Amino acid sequence: MRGLWLEGESIRLRDDLPRPEPAEGEARVRVLAAGICNTDLELVRGYYPFTGVPGHEFVGRVEAAPGAEKWEGRRVVGEINAACGACPACRAGRRPHCERRTVLGIRGRDGAFAESLTLPVANLHEVPDGLPDDVAVFTEPLAAALQVREQVRIGPGDRVVVVGDGKLGNLVAQTLALTGCALTVIGRHPGKLALLAARGIATTTAESELPEGRADVAVECTGSPEGLERARRAVRPRGTIVLKSTYRGRATLDVSRIVVDEITLVGSRCGPFAPAIALLTEGRVDVRPLVHARFPLHEAVAAFAEASRPGVMKVIVETG
Amino acid sequence: MRGLWLEGESIRLRDDLPRPEPAEGEARVRVLAAGICNTDLELVRGYYPFTGVPGHEFVGRVEAAPGAEKWEGRRVVGEINAACGACPACRAGRRPHCERRTVLGIRGRDGAFAESLTLPVANLHEVPDGLPDDVAVFTEPLAAALQVREQVRIGPGDRVVVVGDGKLGNLVAQTLALTGCALTVIGRHPGKLALLAARGIATTTAESELPEGRADVAVECTGSPEGLERARRAVRPRGTIVLKSTYRGRATLDVSRIVVDEITLVGSRCGPFAPAIALLTEGRVDVRPLVHARFPLHEAVAAFAEASRPGVMKVIVETG
Repeated sequence: MRGLWLEGESIRLRDDLPRPEPAEGEARVRVLAAGICNTDLELVRGYYPFTGVPGHEFVGRVEAAPGAEKWEGRRVVGEINAACGACPACRAGRRPHCERRTVLGIRGRDGAFAESLTLPVANLHEVPDGLPDDVAVFTEPLAAALQVREQVRIGPGDRVVVVGDGKLGNLVAQTLALTGCALTVIGRHPGKLALLAARGIATTTAESELPEGRADVAVECTGSPEGLERARRAVRPRGTIVLKSTYRGRATLDVSRIVVDEITLVGSRCGPFAPAIALLTEGRVDVRPLVHARFPLHEAVAAFAEASRPGVMKVIVETG
Repeated sequence: MRGLWLEGESIRLRDDLPRPEPAEGEARVRVLAAGICNTDLELVRGYYPFTGVPGHEFVGRVEAAPGAEKWEGRRVVGEINAACGACPACRAGRRPHCERRTVLGIRGRDGAFAESLTLPVANLHEVPDGLPDDVAVFTEPLAAALQVREQVRIGPGDRVVVVGDGKLGNLVAQTLALTGCALTVIGRHPGKLALLAARGIATTTAESELPEGRADVAVECTGSPEGLERARRAVRPRGTIVLKSTYRGRATLDVSRIVVDEITLVGSRCGPFAPAIALLTEGRVDVRPLVHARFPLHEAVAAFAEASRPGVMKVIVETG
């Protein structure tokens, strides 16, 4: 089958990939559309050593599900962590942190920039008929955005700052706006901030407009080390900084300020799919304006080049 | 009066200090004994710009308390943050984070390496008669150790690693041992670890003896940037790192590991005095073996030199 192949820090299209065979408990899914995430771009930059087909944001149709045939033909999205179910982390209920996990398109499992992929049936979520592919493909990143609310209690009146106006910052901001919190997004791109302003969300490009040390929660979504320091300046003593973005390299931290101000930092990764699908279905989060471009699978290399350009939002690879 | 004076990065004894006058709501306390904390040593190294009398761990006797005369003559310890009561942080119940606070011997208020100090009466806690001065003087650092338990739920069966076997690590370990958690202290000094082993606490000098990524909670008490990385290696996904030590300079952090493993970091500073006094009074925490040396106030400069030597535990300056 055809698919995008990552090896070292280069990607190329291949037509000679074997069609993946579902292991026990797994389904094979024909990919309809897949989104390019910053993590994919970081993988190409060498953030994590992965050889194989990248891609973990997808919508597809189940082609084969041996032993779970009722899934065949259904349109689905899928959670990306395939857990063993037996290690200490799984037994403690932390399946996304399974010590032997594979992760779709990231670790030990070929991903979504290909004609087909496999995932455990347990990871699949059916997509309601009314939800278009290019909306459903946002389920995974929207779930990741929702994880912030799983980890930190945020409610009406809480002062929250989202640092970063990219794809992730946009989704995080839209989900947090639903809590009724007093939200401000600080970013660098007026055009991206305008998407949020159109949803009634307060935005700024000037850090001077954010009172220093006043936010109850700051969510770092920039994908760069500077974002952490900006979040730290925004947050009040005993406030919380949520770290959402992964990138290669290390950030420096003024530990004494974290101690003296008793700041909490929370790393945040994958989140719950069911509420993400519900928000998309009900139209309470609007992802359409985030789509920058669509490319067919045979132009996936060009799609990555486009997604790497500064300021570009979501690029979707259409396979179906 | 006599006192130790910090200016720039040098300390000297002075005999010409004015006796501090209690402001409204304050008491003047005659110092009986004061302990040298790592923060004091870091102040001399320029960790924070403070000019004045250092010292924030003390036991003393109230000399004058205008308007609260019942306190006069009582032996007391005192919380070190003097809050305004009116700023947003105070109104939100975060008085230790008062935006206009003075901090005894650290910020805007002369401290305990002198014959007398002043503090708000509201900050004072009476010391039970049976508690010797050289035990009571540990109230403040023991309260800081107890703050870990105020911030992170730790109970029987939880796997906890304390990184650091110094004064702070020792007190944190002793308080955590009372929770029934499965505790290990990792340190570099067999003599210091032996103090903990004598209390029935498991210790090691070899990181290889600590299974990587297994601890539910790791508490960083080393006072150096390397401690944070060691704590990160010890803690499991979705575990918690508590940061207890302040030092000059910055640490580097692999943010992506924090995100992928969804680690929580919690800065932790001052803690509750009442339970600290209770633990000392009941003898459930043993601080006597931590006392390395005692110096009279007129030898306070020598006391600091001794406290700065590697491996030295608590040095007490006796004023009474």
